[in-house]
Order: sequence, then structure tokens, then C-alpha cells
Amino acid sequence: MNTLGNKLRVTIFGQSHAAAIGCVVEGLPAGFRPDMDRVASFMARRAPGRTAWSTPRQESDAPEILSGLVDGILCGAPVSAVIRNSDQRSKDYEGLRRTPRPSHADYTAWVKYGEHYDIRGGGQFSGRLTAPLCFAGALALQVLEARGVAVAAHIGQIGGVFDPPPDFARVEQKELTALLERPFPVFSEEAGVAMRQEIERSRMEADSVGGVIRCFALGLPAGIGEPMFGGVENRLAAALFGIPAIRGVSFGDGFAAAAMRGSQHNDPFVMEGGAVHTRTNHAGGVLGGITTGMPLVVNVAVKPTASIAREQDTVDLKTGTDTTLVIHGRHDPCIVPRAVPVVEAVTALTLLDMLLEE
Amino acid sequence: MNTLGNKLRVTIFGQSHAAAIGCVVEGLPAGFRPDMDRVASFMARRAPGRTAWSTPRQESDAPEILSGLVDGILCGAPVSAVIRNSDQRSKDYEGLRRTPRPSHADYTAWVKYGEHYDIRGGGQFSGRLTAPLCFAGALALQVLEARGVAVAAHIGQIGGVFDPPPDFARVEQKELTALLERPFPVFSEEAGVAMRQEIERSRMEADSVGGVIRCFALGLPAGIGEPMFGGVENRLAAALFGIPAIRGVSFGDGFAAAAMRGSQHNDPFVMEGGAVHTRTNHAGGVLGGITTGMPLVVNVAVKPTASIAREQDTVDLKTGTDTTLVIHGRHDPCIVPRAVPVVEAVTALTLLDMLLEE
Amino acid sequence: MNTLGNKLRVTIFGQSHAAAIGCVVEGLPAGFRPDMDRVASFMARRAPGRTAWSTPRQESDAPEILSGLVDGILCGAPVSAVIRNSDQRSKDYEGLRRTPRPSHADYTAWVKYGEHYDIRGGGQFSGRLTAPLCFAGALALQVLEARGVAVAAHIGQIGGVFDPPPDFARVEQKELTALLERPFPVFSEEAGVAMRQEIERSRMEADSVGGVIRCFALGLPAGIGEPMFGGVENRLAAALFGIPAIRGVSFGDGFAAAAMRGSQHNDPFVMEGGAVHTRTNHAGGVLGGITTGMPLVVNVAVKPTASIAREQDTVDLKTGTDTTLVIHGRHDPCIVPRAVPVVEAVTALTLLDMLLEE
Amino acid sequence: MNTLGNKLRVTIFGQSHAAAIGCVVEGLPAGFRPDMDRVASFMARRAPGRTAWSTPRQESDAPEILSGLVDGILCGAPVSAVIRNSDQRSKDYEGLRRTPRPSHADYTAWVKYGEHYDIRGGGQFSGRLTAPLCFAGALALQVLEARGVAVAAHIGQIGGVFDPPPDFARVEQKELTALLERPFPVFSEEAGVAMRQEIERSRMEADSVGGVIRCFALGLPAGIGEPMFGGVENRLAAALFGIPAIRGVSFGDGFAAAAMRGSQHNDPFVMEGGAVHTRTNHAGGVLGGITTGMPLVVNVAVKPTASIAREQDTVDLKTGTDTTLVIHGRHDPCIVPRAVPVVEAVTALTLLDMLLEE
Repeated sequence: MNTLGNKLRVTIFGQSHAAAIGCVVEGLPAGFRPDMDRVASFMARRAPGRTAWSTPRQESDAPEILSGLVDGILCGAPVSAVIRNSDQRSKDYEGLRRTPRPSHADYTAWVKYGEHYDIRGGGQFSGRLTAPLCFAGALALQVLEARGVAVAAHIGQIGGVFDPPPDFARVEQKELTALLERPFPVFSEEAGVAMRQEIERSRMEADSVGGVIRCFALGLPAGIGEPMFGGVENRLAAALFGIPAIRGVSFGDGFAAAAMRGSQHNDPFVMEGGAVHTRTNHAGGVLGGITTGMPLVVNVAVKPTASIAREQDTVDLKTGTDTTLVIHGRHDPCIVPRAVPVVEAVTALTLLDMLLEE
Repeated sequence: MNTLGNKLRVTIFGQSHAAAIGCVVEGLPAGFRPDMDRVASFMARRAPGRTAWSTPRQESDAPEILSGLVDGILCGAPVSAVIRNSDQRSKDYEGLRRTPRPSHADYTAWVKYGEHYDIRGGGQFSGRLTAPLCFAGALALQVLEARGVAVAAHIGQIGGVFDPPPDFARVEQKELTALLERPFPVFSEEAGVAMRQEIERSRMEADSVGGVIRCFALGLPAGIGEPMFGGVENRLAAALFGIPAIRGVSFGDGFAAAAMRGSQHNDPFVMEGGAVHTRTNHAGGVLGGITTGMPLVVNVAVKPTASIAREQDTVDLKTGTDTTLVIHGRHDPCIVPRAVPVVEAVTALTLLDMLLEE
Repeated sequence: MNTLGNKLRVTIFGQSHAAAIGCVVEGLPAGFRPDMDRVASFMARRAPGRTAWSTPRQESDAPEILSGLVDGILCGAPVSAVIRNSDQRSKDYEGLRRTPRPSHADYTAWVKYGEHYDIRGGGQFSGRLTAPLCFAGALALQVLEARGVAVAAHIGQIGGVFDPPPDFARVEQKELTALLERPFPVFSEEAGVAMRQEIERSRMEADSVGGVIRCFALGLPAGIGEPMFGGVENRLAAALFGIPAIRGVSFGDGFAAAAMRGSQHNDPFVMEGGAVHTRTNHAGGVLGGITTGMPLVVNVAVKPTASIAREQDTVDLKTGTDTTLVIHGRHDPCIVPRAVPVVEAVTALTLLDMLLEE
Repeated sequence: MNTLGNKLRVTIFGQSHAAAIGCVVEGLPAGFRPDMDRVASFMARRAPGRTAWSTPRQESDAPEILSGLVDGILCGAPVSAVIRNSDQRSKDYEGLRRTPRPSHADYTAWVKYGEHYDIRGGGQFSGRLTAPLCFAGALALQVLEARGVAVAAHIGQIGGVFDPPPDFARVEQKELTALLERPFPVFSEEAGVAMRQEIERSRMEADSVGGVIRCFALGLPAGIGEPMFGGVENRLAAALFGIPAIRGVSFGDGFAAAAMRGSQHNDPFVMEGGAVHTRTNHAGGVLGGITTGMPLVVNVAVKPTASIAREQDTVDLKTGTDTTLVIHGRHDPCIVPRAVPVVEAVTALTLLDMLLEE
């Protein structure tokens, strides 16, 4: 299902090596004038080919906007945008149809769609489809900002290296702003150095490494979300698992809560500046599916990139026998840094949708 | 939003101290004859008051079926069932309207619904509403079973105690059957003893403790699920976060994947008995949102029960001042065991919905 | 699909001869105190057995409210209500399983659900399921009224007799109020007499007769509705066709527009009392799917009751041969009067849902 | 809401004078090879500028397919297509922002979206957006055909001229095939001549004229559709009202059923060739929301084109005073012929969606 959201509704289309990829975004507020330079900057954070640790594929991911804007202002009609695929080295991929790459979607796509599914570059499962998602998210982020809501994420973990997060009850706007300006978004520069070493190490070993992204939203009013199946967690998790390679989504202390006592995990209410706050924020800003007004904290586990430069065991789907394969080309040993803006985009799209629905 | 699912659609209603709670289940296959004794047994696993570690509230949670069955056979019309609330000690709760319980939904409900929300026993946020969810899930489990799909969960963690899971690539039907027959569903009886000690310890300390539930589904065909926002993970996470106290949902190795290398996490394809399998199953049975045919593995983090028998800081919503509260009554120090069938129920409902949609 | 609506969501359950029928209504505004006497009066308009022209089945359709209200006030949780079925003359219907009644859903239910579908009294296809729909609609009507929106319908046609409608641009609140107070809701009492004669005539002929219901909504603000597939017409039609026996839905001049010239059908804009109005209202209050602020006018065609006291041709599904059947019992020769509150209820539920979504 | 459907999901985007219009179609069956010449022919039936009675705007509506096809075969990924807008005479329209055209969406768009809505050529409300809808529908029609389902419509009425339809119980495949080959799709060529005269007459009078389109679907299996709000009528009506200028949707005898007796309208069941049929088909192929297996018959009322070459009363939104306007340019006096393929497209998309959901 390539459509996300109710009142703000995003539809993603395209395959890695089709003529184009793109999106349709319905429900953005008419009359808003997005800053397109900032949209481009945001999308650049996701683009490959910029840094030592990303894939060499160099593409201009500049979207062409086909509708929804008149003289640079949102007119109320759906915004549609198209990004052309210039790099279509289809031949690299044809052999993979017989020998599915381990931990890619090659095999499940073959089961689901039969022999005619688009194998080239991962087809519709390619990480490249997060580009239009970032375009849509960049618009949502600006609308949220105009409503006083800031969204930003840091790299919480790469392999065994952790970036210590701020107190969830005391995250500040300026900390998030700083994150957004860093090419490698961590709070501790020291941790950042160690993380990049970890990534480089995995590359030297012809391997890849996973990580955790932690996303914050400040300025959300209390009372957003519905009980039971319409909560903030339900909606954000349903959206975030749409990002390739995500293996887990948690809120606040997340899985660490399993090892905690209630007396540690409970967040006492306190009056602060005339408002009801919680002294701690283990909950990550949500109780009963509904925002408390405290910072929203969502954690996302990213698996190590499936493409590694090693020989791997697989099967030949044609002959039904075991075989091996080597995935040629240069590989990004860690997609976590590039996934940060995607997590921000999906979080922003979902939160704006929920705000518009209230 | 009290409705879950598309083709199999469950609507939950009721509050802890309303006249009743119940559910409507649409889309179950006509002609199927559910075993109502097994439905009752399944629901009993969730019911409070059975064991040393559960709350003392004793209720007959026997559902009255109002529609959808004729002579014990599903007729195609929605199944509706009602469970009466016999225990309505409303007075216990009235004071809480001013002083929200930390880490409960009292405060967010007050923000969202105003002063008229139902504070009694947690109202619509009460864990009691998982009873009709279990009723619906018990029916889904039987339909799945008839289609060769088995769903069962174990307690993977209580506080600092872990139950070692089986190899995700080799989980067997008989292991799941054994789990379902255990009052305290763990693979290692030794771990179970330690877990119950951990629960008892938290009770002695007037505290509570969290845990992790790991749910398996065997027998799912490969090819179930849609790419992007319609994947198995999106759908299951959206549903599972509807269970109170859930703080995280992950698949296969989950957050542990963040610390892994690709060479460790990738699951090589192998031919086994003429079928395509994976030698390991770090992915937990899903690639690209679509089932691989290997065991599905979903992990759920449960926070420590928010109700603890200690004085806690909170605020007085009427005067806008800091205050304290003590939650009277006996408290269940760990809801994890009772949440096991709820996780199974929600997993079964979602998987059956997805199977029916194919 | 027994669920209607997005933000205001109604789920209907039950069969004619099950233990009960009922509904769950989610999304009504917390803090509102419905007048339950008016709910009962509204529901009584639909109930059978009241008049010469309705079916003899006498039932207390008093709903028992199970949840969603605390001390008579909506608390934010879903409202659920159950109506018991006291009259369960199941034996009358068993023979029909072999010989489907012409123009009933007996045959299509048999195809869809197999031999176990509930044949008794029409099962889930029974007009009796409009009782909980009216309960839900009665609540929506009161909430709409509090927001300045009035909804009421008249019988526009019975067989060949027409009740002349008011000028669609000049419908007044007091006319609607008068309609709601009439047991047989027509503008012209003369037309009403002729209609009742038409109904009586069809009864004498062991036959039935159809009609048209025209429903108005006053006080809707301009700007409600979405373009394309989310318009007022799309939403209302999708809902109204959920009422049994409805064969057509149109807006304003409806099918008569087909024979008109643009110069006749166009509604010129005029300033009236400082507001933009239209001089005429052939459009029925909607342009491009969005309300104009003029009275909303929706027309609903009701087929003649399928149950008639004559021998009819049908087939024997068991033997696959032609046969005849006679439907025993007394038959309501015209359901149009009883369908009026159902049309009002469904219109109110849909409009309130759309208002809440804005 | 620019998205239609559940399993087959179409999203339409663009405005009349934006850079482009287009669509995304998700859920078409992988492995199917559409005949693109037939797609082009189908789309040409809708295109303006072909005939004496259509608007003079001449555009190549050739869609560029951006994704979803590999070597001409559906690969399982969403099909996206873009149609460039070459003719963007924006200046013609700017004055209309102050003086909304009667019975167009100018005024309601202004209320909903504010001053920045796209007024040019009707913006997102333009009939031009039915071009991508026809592209999507053309694909659906071919998939339906491969499954044995044929969809075709005739012009049932233009102004006061009627094309006599065939017996709804005896519509034949070859009659539908003939319809599709006629530039002016009527059963009676005599009626066609009279209709074209009626259209020409309205043009000579600087006026426009409405009509009725009747669409048939043959070959649908019995049992498609859900009770209550998920019936064939609910789904088709919700979709068809998405076509501009539609004022009514009815099934079988439609509004004529209001004047009928049950003994006339009931369709007796008969065995024919070993299958259950109905002797007549007043119901139009649906009972209780579920297909009977008889021909599906849906009628659609089209209002006279709102653009007429006469001075009309309107208001000046800036000054709040009454004024007049003349809509310049050449006007299509009757959009009914061009709306025929659009009705077929929307019917096909909805029926295929429902078939895929079963």
C-alpha cells in the first residue's frame, strides 16, 4: 500500500529504474508558501553520493512539481512531484532474478508478483523511493514549524556506539535546531567520531552495520491522538515501518521499560510555569495513545544494510538448488545517517495528519 | 479509534465501569463452527484473579453472544458479544479526577474529553477492554488454525530475567502447542520460576515490573503483505500498540539488529525439502513487508504497571498545584502474563485480516 | 460492511431473529447531554405496528445503552446500545431457504454465505437493523441541532402521488420543524391523504408501492466537503444506499436536470443580507462536492416492498427447478413512511461526520 | 479526496492549467500486458475537440507512463502516468476569481481554499481531470475483460430525447461491443440523430443541455458486494459522484421504481440453462448490495453544462455586490457524450476493486 495518511495523504510511486519516482500529497493547507530551498536542503540530507559513507550513485534528485502550487503558494489541490531516474544500469540486476539477495525483498517480490516484478535496483522496494517521501515530509515539516511544532532526529546508535540522548523531559528547541544543521546528526561529537569509525570499520570488512534513530517532536499540544487503535504510537509505527530496513519502533524508554520498575518508569506530574508537565518523560510524550504535551520521543531500529561485498549463500529459483552470489558494485555500509531525514519526514507527515484530523 | 482491520473488522466498546464491554466482529467466514469451550479457555488466560500475581478483581467475563451465530455456526453476519460489568466500585475513583495517576491516561483523557470523561477504573482506557479483544481473537485463532496457521507467544523477559527463545528458523508447532498449555508461558521452566520471583519481589517492594512478550506465527504462506505502508510490520505494529502499556514493537532480532553486522543479520536462502527457506531467521519472517514463509516473530515491550502501592507526586487539576496521591486497592505488580493472550489475539486478528485480503 | 463514517463512526450489528440488534457509535462529542425522550420519539417514527399502513409486528425497540454515557452525558467513549429481539418466529422462515423470495436478499445471501446464512426474517438484511441506525442518527441530529443544523425529510412521492416540495432556495426552518411533528411527513395535507389512499389501494390489491423521500439540511456552513471522491454527494450516497430498498440517490433537481437547459438549471449568485446566496437552488446546496451554504437537498428512491401477498414465481435451490411461493403473514404495503426517519438518521450521521472532519 | 478504491486504488492529481495532470494506480495484477493502443482509443472517446459538439480545446492527452510497467507488462508496482498541459491560457480566468461562475465550483473553492485556490480553467475541479481517470479505467476495463466482465454505457437521454434501453434481463455482449464502437453510443440510431439535434439546438440558443448515461456490466459473478454500507450501490455511487456534473445515481429502474407496484418491480427467479436467473431485472443486478449474476445496470444523471454563452447574474466577492458576467470562449453545449467513457472508467475501476477484494 503506497498511500499514507487520512486527511494529509501521501501516495508514493515509482521504481528504482523506472522512468521516474514521485509522490502525490493531498491535504496540505491552501495559502501556505513553502520555502523550496529548504525543501532541497532537506532532501539533500537523504541523497546518496555526498559523503564517504554513502553509496556512489550520483543523481540529481531535484523534484519537478507538476501541480498543487500556483506562483509558489499551495492552492489546495494535491501537490504532485516527479523525480527522474537518470541512472538506469538495468543489466547489473538481471541475474538476481534467479538468485535472490539474502535479506532483500527479491524473493518475497518474486513470490507475490511472479516473474514480471521489477528486479532492477530493488524495483519498488528500493530505498530510492524515500526521496519523494522526503519531499513530502519537507513540506509537512514546514507546515508543522509554522504551527510551532519542531521535529528532528539524532543517530542514537551505530553498531556498539551510542550517542547519549538528552533528558526526554528537557529536550530543547535549540538542541533540535543544532541537530538539523549537522551533517552527521549526533548530540556528542565524540560519539559521532566513534560512529563514523564503526561505519568505516564495517566497510573495511566488506560488511555493513545497523543502528538506532531517535526522533523528537517538540511543541505538540496535549490531547492529540485517539484511544486504542488510533493512538500516536499506532499511527507513527504504522508509518515508520514503511521505511526500508526498519526492524523496530518504540516510544520513550521503549524496550528498556521491560527491565524497569514502575517506580522508575512512572512520570510524576508537576506544575511548571502554570502548566501540567511530567518531571521525567519515560513515556516519550504519550499516555493512552494521546499526547501529554511533553516532548514526543520515538526510537527506530535500523538493520545493517543487506547488500554486503561478500559471497553469500542463496538459491537458484529456476533450478531449485543451493548456490552463492556476490553483489557487485560499491555498497553503502550503513544507511542509518541517510535514513535520519526519512524518519523525520515520516514522523512529520504522520503528526501533521493527526493535527489536521483533530 | 476503536475499530481494527479491513476485511476482518473488530470494534471494541465499553468502559471499565459502564454497564458492559463488548465487541463486534465482522468478516469471519460463514459456515465455520467455533469451539466455544476453547474460546472460554483462551479468555480465562487473560482474566484477573486467577493467580498469585494477578489483580484480585473477580469477574465472570463470560461473553453473551448477541448475533452472528445460528445454531453455533457463523452465519456471515457480524458476531457481537457483550460482557457485563458486575463490579462497579465507582466511588473509589472519583478523587482521581483532580489528581491524575502518573503514567495512566487520566490526564490525557481529561485534556481530550474534558471533565465528563469516564474516570472510573480507567474508563475506556482500562485493560479490561482487552477481554472482548480476546474473545474476537479466540475466534480468529480457530479460523487460522483451520487454515494451518498457529499463533502463540512466550514471556521473553520479566525485569532482568530472560526466557531464551528457540532458533527463529526452527520454531516448531509442538513448542507452540506446549506454550499454550502452560499457565505461565515460557520455554524454560527455570526462567519461569525466576520470573515469578521477580514479580513477587516487585510486589513486596510495593512496586511493579515490565517485560517482553514474543509472539510466533507458523504456517503463514509466503507472499502475504503489501510493500511500503501495507506490510506485515506496519499492520501488526498498528494493531499491537492498541494494547495498553505497550511501548515497543519489533520483528525478528528487533533492536538487537542495530548492533549487528550485515554478515551476521543476513539470512541466507537455502533449499529445504524442495522449498525455499532461510538458514537463519533474523528477519522474523518478513522481507519488504511480505512474509517469507518462515516463522513470523514479533516482540512487544510492556512497561511496568503504572498502578503501584506507593505515594506518588502528581498535580491537583482544580487548583493547579503540586500534590501527592496513593492509589488504594491491591495492584497487579506485572500485567505481562495476562497480556500474553492479548498479544496473541491481536496478532491473530491482524494476520487473519491480511490473509482474507489476499 | 457494517461500519459507516470516519471520525463519527457507526457500527451496526444483529439479525432480525438473533438475540439482539444494536450499534456502536464512536466520535460523538464528549460533554454533550442527549435528550433521551427525543431519541425515543425519533425511534418511534420508524417502529412498525403503529399505524394502519405498517407491519403488525409489535416490539419494544427501546435500546439499552451499555456504554458511552456517564450520568446521562457523553463521556467520549463509544456509545453502544442493544435492542433485544422479542419476536423470534423462526419457523416461519425455514422453508424460504430453498425458495428465495423475489427481490429480497435471500438468494444473494445464499450465494455469498452458503447454506448457513441467517434466513430468519431476512437475517442481517432485515429492515429491523435500521432501528439501531435510527438510535445513532437521533444522537447525531441533536448534536447537529446544537450546531445550528436542522435535518428533516418529507415523503415526496408515493406511487403516482406527489407532495410538492418548497422552493429549494427558500426552505425554512419552521417548515422542517412542522414536518418532524407530522406522523405522515408531507408539506401538503391533501397530498398526504392521496398518498395514504394509494398505500391502502396497494394493500387491497395484495400489492405494495414505492416512493421518494426528499431530505433537507439547513444551516450547513459553506465549504464542507472535499473535491472528487470526498464530496457531499459521494459521502451521502455511499451512506444512503445502506438503507434497504433504496434504488436511487440524487441531489437538488436530480434526474430532472437531465431534461433541463443550463440557463434553467444554473443558480445565479446574489447578495442577500450581506451573504452570498443563490437565487435558485437547483444544485441542492452542493457545487464541486462542497456545500454552498444553501439548503442541502437529497432525494432517495424507495422501491415497492418486495414482500407481497401474492403467489410469485421462484426457484427451488435444492432441486434446481422452477416453483412458486407465497409469503405468509401480514405485509407492510409501503415502507416509505417508516423509511423517512432512517433517511434523516443516515443523512445526519454523514453530515455530522463531515463537519467533525473539517 | 482524490483517491478511490481499496485494493485497486487510484489517485488523481493536477489542475487544468498546472504543468500536468496524472494518476497513480495501485493494485493492478502483476503479469498482465495491457494493450496500449486500446487504452489510447478509449481515452480518445473522452478527449475534447473531436466532434462538432465538443469544446474546441485541442490537446494531445497522450499519457507518459512513469512506472509500473516493465517491457509493457504490469510489474506489480503502482502504475503512474502524467499528461502534460500544453494549453495554459491563464489570463482568461483571472477575472473569475471575483465573480464566480454560476453552478461552477468557483465559489465553493474560494470558501474552502481562500484566495489562493487555482481558478485557472476550473483548477482541480476541471473536467480535464477525467483524462487520467479514463487512463486508469482503460486498464481496469482490460483486466475485467480478461476475467469475462464487459462494461459499456449508452446515452439514455439528452434533454427530452430518450434512447430506449434493451431489456435489463437480456442485455447481450454483442450489444455492448457495438456500443463501444459507436462514436455516439446509443442503441437506436434514430434516437442518436434526435439527440445530436437537441445538442445543436441548445448550442444555437447559447445554452447547454443535460442527459442520462446508463452503464451495463455483464459477466459479473453472483455474490460480489457486502451488505449495508459495502454494497455494489454504495461503492459505485460513491465513485460515480466523483465525476463532475453528476446529479444522481440509480440502479435498475431507479427513480421509476417509486411509481411502481411490488408485483411489477419484483423479479421472479427462474432456472435458465441450469443457472438461477431472474425473468426480469428491475433491480439492475443487485439485491441487498450483492450481485445477482444478472446484468448490472446503473443510471447516472448529468446536469446541463454550467458554462453557457449568455450573460448571467453573479456577485463580486471583493465588493460584496451583485453583478453580471459573460463566460467567453466556445462552450461545449453537452458534455454527456464525452462523459460516457468516464462513467465506464469509474464503473470498471470500482467493479474490479470489488472483485479483487473478494
